[in-house]
Amino acid sequence: MPPDGTPVGSLGEFGLIDRLRAILGSPDDAGLQRRLVKGISDDAAVLLPVPDRLQLISTDSYAEGIHFDLTYTSPHHLGWKVMAASLSDIAAMAGRPDFATVALCIPQKATVELISRLYEGVAAACREYSVAVVGGDTTASSGGLIIGVTVTGSAGKDRVVYRSGAQPGDLLCVSGHLGASHAGLKILLREKARFAGSDPGTPFIPDLARYTSALEKHFMPRPRFDIAGFFSERIRVHAMIDISDGLASEIHHICSESGVGAALYERSIPVDLVTQHIAGEFSESPLLYALYGGDEYELLFTISDTEYEKLENLTEDVSVIGRMTEADKGIVYVRENGETEPLAGRGWDHFRAPGPGPDR
Amino acid sequence: MPPDGTPVGSLGEFGLIDRLRAILGSPDDAGLQRRLVKGISDDAAVLLPVPDRLQLISTDSYAEGIHFDLTYTSPHHLGWKVMAASLSDIAAMAGRPDFATVALCIPQKATVELISRLYEGVAAACREYSVAVVGGDTTASSGGLIIGVTVTGSAGKDRVVYRSGAQPGDLLCVSGHLGASHAGLKILLREKARFAGSDPGTPFIPDLARYTSALEKHFMPRPRFDIAGFFSERIRVHAMIDISDGLASEIHHICSESGVGAALYERSIPVDLVTQHIAGEFSESPLLYALYGGDEYELLFTISDTEYEKLENLTEDVSVIGRMTEADKGIVYVRENGETEPLAGRGWDHFRAPGPGPDR
Repeated sequence: MPPDGTPVGSLGEFGLIDRLRAILGSPDDAGLQRRLVKGISDDAAVLLPVPDRLQLISTDSYAEGIHFDLTYTSPHHLGWKVMAASLSDIAAMAGRPDFATVALCIPQKATVELISRLYEGVAAACREYSVAVVGGDTTASSGGLIIGVTVTGSAGKDRVVYRSGAQPGDLLCVSGHLGASHAGLKILLREKARFAGSDPGTPFIPDLARYTSALEKHFMPRPRFDIAGFFSERIRVHAMIDISDGLASEIHHICSESGVGAALYERSIPVDLVTQHIAGEFSESPLLYALYGGDEYELLFTISDTEYEKLENLTEDVSVIGRMTEADKGIVYVRENGETEPLAGRGWDHFRAPGPGPDR
Repeated sequence: MPPDGTPVGSLGEFGLIDRLRAILGSPDDAGLQRRLVKGISDDAAVLLPVPDRLQLISTDSYAEGIHFDLTYTSPHHLGWKVMAASLSDIAAMAGRPDFATVALCIPQKATVELISRLYEGVAAACREYSVAVVGGDTTASSGGLIIGVTVTGSAGKDRVVYRSGAQPGDLLCVSGHLGASHAGLKILLREKARFAGSDPGTPFIPDLARYTSALEKHFMPRPRFDIAGFFSERIRVHAMIDISDGLASEIHHICSESGVGAALYERSIPVDLVTQHIAGEFSESPLLYALYGGDEYELLFTISDTEYEKLENLTEDVSVIGRMTEADKGIVYVRENGETEPLAGRGWDHFRAPGPGPDR
């Protein structure tokens, strides 16, 4: 944070809200404009519903010291990331986002500049995904910075996809390549530790330039509306979830909500290339990054074999990583050598002490 | 907080969510049940829209040490209050609430018992006002407890009421009697200070029993859906806002959004009786409590003279406290002796140091 920034108190709550409204601007999207009857400025936002579609709503909180570290995260990236991560929940329902609210609990140390840049990141993500911020709240925080994001959206009445629809025999698929967000975090934590141990008299230059793609995945995740949109029109998806807490954990969620088991094939897990390189630097297995690293925001889904060919040119970006089974088969990890073992479901649990495996 | 309660970490995030879902239960209301396609358990809640009404959405955050003090607030009361305060924003639009999400940032010190009782308070308010909690988020907090509440609702297409519709000549009206929430807070802070200064060897009994009605107003505010519902069917209201930050502050909001002025008559301000008594104990003016005390959740609104008689038996619970004027007349406080002065607009601003007037 800039040590000589403008204290939030000098603007006051309503001055700050005016500043943030100006940063957000009006939505470019004509459909959103038409549906936005009243945005920020009243007790509640007023919106026109889409009568022939289902409404979606999801809420998430992001806490300093738990979800993000302002010593190595720029406010702009933070704003993008909290919005992208929240919107990813709408993609995971095969939905289309529309509106959002943002609530900030702002600590004394935060400046108008920090909050403004945070909102510039929020606004950038909103432009990218055609979302309008229609409300919010700004209050003081006696602890760190807390960002609460609620997003809404809509889905076709017979096209919404739940976690609970997986069927034995389904293909288990994932978009993208995994592990990079965790790999980026490993680099950031390493450089933070190097900085802490460095000579205060010598300028410190973090070693980050070689890891741009992993850092970008960590700081600027992209919810997969490209795939969700294709699914909502062309593919019958049985179950879907986004990967926020790690692949293994999300497989457990789908199995638990659907009442099925799964076999996950080690050889088929699409590990990001840079991740393999970074894990090597730490003498760790890149597969663990792909299995247990969070903040990926790729989509994990199940489809029947007959739907697979309809993926067409999406198949380059989608990997078949396993097959759903009857529940009594359990959730099984099939090693490259053919040996099987139960898939540990541990993902990110906010209230448990970190166990073995990748830290975060 | 019970010193020997169950640590949240022993249940884990998903165990805690299961516990909270059980406390919330299913909505009794048949209309809500029908509209709730999928509640807590997926990436987003899935809802049926009400096609012929406008959608409302509002979000608020409540931070320990800023909005509430767990040393004298029971978790049940806290749960009720955050939900009631949030729902009041829907009442202020002449709306009807339907769904809510609750996001918690939970500090290490909090126990399963505390969070469960908090949710019992949330559930009680939801039953009272026919609201279903359809989603949420639980994460750790490195600071205090933070509660984020987003509420949704609907309003008739030509019956929604904004802050911006006040017209010169309108009657300025308020529901209920004011000041009691602030008076209750004064008592709580006095007893907290007495406890801090008391002999640790002697049992301390706070002096609260004589102040039940003020404490109830402070801890269990009641959003005025009775009045909002009546308005949505019978009365043409020009502008409305709920009193969360204090009467004077809310008058300024209506004037600013509507581009009008107002004259507020001191003699007409409905000061709660117990408030007069409590303010006397502190040798303070009860009018200041009524003007600047927050957390009232009464409705402030403007109507034309011809609508007033339609209030019928509501008039016992509604006071005419002033008249809207042209903007160039400013916002004026008319003393009982007829002298006038500008109405100080100061309400609760989260980022400014407390000034003179009632503290909170």
